[in-house]
Amino acid sequence: MVVVLYVIIVYDVGEERVNKVRIYLKQYLNWVQNSVLEGELTEPEYMKIMNGLREIIDETLDHVICYKSRDRRYLNIDEVGTKKAEISTII
Amino acid sequence: MVVVLYVIIVYDVGEERVNKVRIYLKQYLNWVQNSVLEGELTEPEYMKIMNGLREIIDETLDHVICYKSRDRRYLNIDEVGTKKAEISTII
Repeated sequence: MVVVLYVIIVYDVGEERVNKVRIYLKQYLNWVQNSVLEGELTEPEYMKIMNGLREIIDETLDHVICYKSRDRRYLNIDEVGTKKAEISTII
Repeated sequence: MVVVLYVIIVYDVGEERVNKVRIYLKQYLNWVQNSVLEGELTEPEYMKIMNGLREIIDETLDHVICYKSRDRRYLNIDEVGTKKAEISTII
């Protein structure tokens, strides 16, 4: 059985790496807010992404937090205010 | 029985309200990253904070997401890189 995790990733990285991190994570997760992405991943996908992040970020300067839930239903999500449009990334 | 929730709050608010939101949330939660706080709250505390946030933010411009877990153990947290020091708030 493939275990699917519900993952929330929040990052605080140097400006020069922000676009790279966002573009990388958006291959696997949904953008929900500035520096926040969410989505479902299998454990191997999750491990791959963590390794990929280590290659992109500067581990001495940047910080990424990953919250993993075994089931999306364990998590309640409330929102206040208006979801912003994603800032388009010019490559 | 008092139900304690594990809460993660991420916010994207206008610059002129950022300090106010951070100072407000830090009364109840722990700062973990730029625009991210975590901690345990009871349901009444949570409701109070949500109402307080609505008074501080501009609901047409700002966005706050609250992830709630019934139990901290349902959530795994991984970090990559280095946690930054909190930017001190000059009031």
